[in-house]
Amino acid sequence: MTGIGNLISKRAAARTTSHFTTGPTDGAPEGFKAHPKPLPLHWGMPNDGFFPIDSIDINLVDFPFEKSYQLTNNSLENLSLSGSNQGAQTVTPPLEPTKSVKTIRIERRTSDPDLIDIATGLQYANVEGLGPLLKFTRDFITRTHKPGYENWETIITNGAGDGLNKAADALLDPEDVILIEEFTFTPFLQNVSNAGGIAVPVKLSIKNGSQGLDLEYLTDLLENWETIHPGKNKPKALYTIATGQNPTGLTQTVEFRKKVYDLAEKYDFAIIEDDPYGYLALPPYQPPSATIKLDEFLTVDEYLKDHLIPSYLEIDTKGRVIRIETFSKLFAPGLRLGFIVAHKDVIAAVSNYSAIVTRTSSGTSQLIVNNVIQQKFGGVDGWLQWILKMRATYSHRRDVLLKTIFDSEAYAKKYIDVIDPKAGMFVALIVNFPEGTDFLTKLKLLVWKFAAYGVGVVPGINMAVDKKFSAEHANFFRLTYAPANSDEELIEGGKRLTDAINDFFEKGLEF
Amino acid sequence: MTGIGNLISKRAAARTTSHFTTGPTDGAPEGFKAHPKPLPLHWGMPNDGFFPIDSIDINLVDFPFEKSYQLTNNSLENLSLSGSNQGAQTVTPPLEPTKSVKTIRIERRTSDPDLIDIATGLQYANVEGLGPLLKFTRDFITRTHKPGYENWETIITNGAGDGLNKAADALLDPEDVILIEEFTFTPFLQNVSNAGGIAVPVKLSIKNGSQGLDLEYLTDLLENWETIHPGKNKPKALYTIATGQNPTGLTQTVEFRKKVYDLAEKYDFAIIEDDPYGYLALPPYQPPSATIKLDEFLTVDEYLKDHLIPSYLEIDTKGRVIRIETFSKLFAPGLRLGFIVAHKDVIAAVSNYSAIVTRTSSGTSQLIVNNVIQQKFGGVDGWLQWILKMRATYSHRRDVLLKTIFDSEAYAKKYIDVIDPKAGMFVALIVNFPEGTDFLTKLKLLVWKFAAYGVGVVPGINMAVDKKFSAEHANFFRLTYAPANSDEELIEGGKRLTDAINDFFEKGLEF
Repeated sequence: MTGIGNLISKRAAARTTSHFTTGPTDGAPEGFKAHPKPLPLHWGMPNDGFFPIDSIDINLVDFPFEKSYQLTNNSLENLSLSGSNQGAQTVTPPLEPTKSVKTIRIERRTSDPDLIDIATGLQYANVEGLGPLLKFTRDFITRTHKPGYENWETIITNGAGDGLNKAADALLDPEDVILIEEFTFTPFLQNVSNAGGIAVPVKLSIKNGSQGLDLEYLTDLLENWETIHPGKNKPKALYTIATGQNPTGLTQTVEFRKKVYDLAEKYDFAIIEDDPYGYLALPPYQPPSATIKLDEFLTVDEYLKDHLIPSYLEIDTKGRVIRIETFSKLFAPGLRLGFIVAHKDVIAAVSNYSAIVTRTSSGTSQLIVNNVIQQKFGGVDGWLQWILKMRATYSHRRDVLLKTIFDSEAYAKKYIDVIDPKAGMFVALIVNFPEGTDFLTKLKLLVWKFAAYGVGVVPGINMAVDKKFSAEHANFFRLTYAPANSDEELIEGGKRLTDAINDFFEKGLEF
Repeated sequence: MTGIGNLISKRAAARTTSHFTTGPTDGAPEGFKAHPKPLPLHWGMPNDGFFPIDSIDINLVDFPFEKSYQLTNNSLENLSLSGSNQGAQTVTPPLEPTKSVKTIRIERRTSDPDLIDIATGLQYANVEGLGPLLKFTRDFITRTHKPGYENWETIITNGAGDGLNKAADALLDPEDVILIEEFTFTPFLQNVSNAGGIAVPVKLSIKNGSQGLDLEYLTDLLENWETIHPGKNKPKALYTIATGQNPTGLTQTVEFRKKVYDLAEKYDFAIIEDDPYGYLALPPYQPPSATIKLDEFLTVDEYLKDHLIPSYLEIDTKGRVIRIETFSKLFAPGLRLGFIVAHKDVIAAVSNYSAIVTRTSSGTSQLIVNNVIQQKFGGVDGWLQWILKMRATYSHRRDVLLKTIFDSEAYAKKYIDVIDPKAGMFVALIVNFPEGTDFLTKLKLLVWKFAAYGVGVVPGINMAVDKKFSAEHANFFRLTYAPANSDEELIEGGKRLTDAINDFFEKGLEF
């Protein structure tokens, strides 16, 4: 079998589903003629007349933080830089609303094929997802990351976590090996282990200008697999967060991805590309100035051509890439909604798993996301314009946090470095401990210091596949500018962080 | 361990979860004092200011079919009986709206502890479910089916299908046996098999006045397990749809349940009680007359005391009952929302599974269901009043379908019987084949006949755990009055059905 067929787990390949309401398809008696308008006394589904909801109105904003009751600076127009570093400054001009509509209505019934109505969205549905949203995901991927082959498909999931679990199930039988970036989104390890798989870490190069994965290490690992991991199965898959890597923030170039893909071809493994925030492709750091750069002059075409980092899908010719997408970071996490893009054989395996284990995704979330995208933003390009606004807002936040760090005493004294991320919501803060320092002890003590100063960060070591494997280069923390309520909070958080480090170093790495 | 602890699967008991953002809890340095107001640079969750939705308005109806654009008779007030049997008649009076509010607003932020706001509902959340809805499920069960012991809990699921899969995982290790009503909701068999379990059918008694499960058969099976099933593990659980059984429509009395529970105690097995439509407790059939009985004079207290059939929970003193609830039939299926009620040890196992496999349920669905129940219906009792209206509408539909059957030639000639359901949405139509008939061949032929006449039904045999085991009493079809668009459709469907049977019998059981 060409493509990814040989990589599908035996468990997934053996799974079949059927439903008891399906009638016989063989053995029609002579003279049988189907009735043109059969009436349903078989499906155990309530008529939509039983639903208490008649229609839903959704009130929307035109740009992030347009209304945010908790903010000091409560709109993007007013996002300001204040605090110790800089006086308050107002951002102008904001992007024009994509459409002037502020409220969209989801009707009980509609004949518009691009929309999902209450009668359909709140009814039982196929596990693959509701038609209009499924079509949107295909159109969106065709516009942003078109796969390099024809037989690809999409399927709706309950968010990226669900997508990752389904990818693990589709590929991994007990004892199957999956390669994983040594620092990673560790909940995925539980999915691997739930499928019976074995996670083997791959070294990362964690410094500015690096692309994450240590290609030399990976090549050597694959070439000398039997020697390095005697008795273990050959790797069946690589799991990578290739853009804005979690937790390091690093991003692979397209040239780099081609080299990794060549290895996948040579050693016949699948690539699970987890990409929750890749659309937040960020320009290089620059000191946050008078205005938020809302990319007034950056068109969707320019963004797609020059800024968005290509997916592994685009260099995939065989269907060995499984891309995990989510609406969590661009729309809202509580939707629990995302999708998978992969070869149709993989999608079929995922669909069977869904039919048995997770069932259909929330119709409520599907109809809201679909109709907001269609009715408010006008489809794929309008949604990409919303993404440009998200990107600009994240970019600004990243700049605010980095400036605070760059202006700090700890940075001036070279106690720390930061990696300027090309995408996403994470920054790695590297602590330059003197040679010979016992990293793990000192990092733990430093976390207590942060707690005393009042700032939460994630120690890189918490996100290691194998703490022993990674102990030697775990001298970093993951920072994020996503949850803060305001620029002020980011500035204050960055100040507490760097003050704590400075104090820690001044005291000879003691509390 | 008392209670259900010894019944939890080894797989579920061994599962643990942790999250990388959790800081150290031991080894605080001397002099450490936590900052009173720490700032978050650790959680990878977007601030709710990034959400495009500011608020949601939900437009509601006061009774089922108040607005239904597809109906001929398009409101409960106008629900009529027409067609061949009876002239059109109008229903009066409808129940008064519980609250006069027709639209509720879900705000971005609220301080009302009973409500879920956008900032919370669309954010990442605990797998157990959002606080206000979780509290509602506890309050609701306390009011309707209070367990007979203290240490019970609830957890939100993605609907009953998800709840069933989680119950199977929590109880069944490979080779573990679960007893299942011989005709059942067969998708559950895939959950059993996914957990490695073995389904063993238990006979049903399928006739009017029966309670479903054949108690004598069950008692004998348990007493002589080693003889009947040599080499198989003893049963670890019984799966039962005890109220309005799917597909037979049969319902167990509370006295009957006590006897089954005694067997569970004696032979130490768990009971999975699947109850998607038990709240639709129906009065006995009566010819549908001039008005829909909207139970104007039936109060919630009377309903709970005299009509609602008690759950296994209420006779459970040890925590061996796992009750699966869903909002699919009373609110809407597309929500993919339900909950499990069980001993806290079971809930903990389910919670661990959720954290790894399914993740959190849709926040969108949770906030809509919770806030509609609170803001429109005013909480538990208002929700029960809505259920009374659902019940009245289903009762009317059941009566319409049964009357059509009772008035038919096929019924007069005793070709068929029907079981008048005490609850739910299913009716078993029993075909009285002459002795010696090859049921399975003739049933299949009859399905073709129905297809020619234009009516869909489910052959009982499609829902058998083991077709061989059940072949001898598979002479029935499952009918439902849930999906029809109108009384007219039910009447026409029933007529096609009985005409087809009559024709089939008149032709000597041939097409």
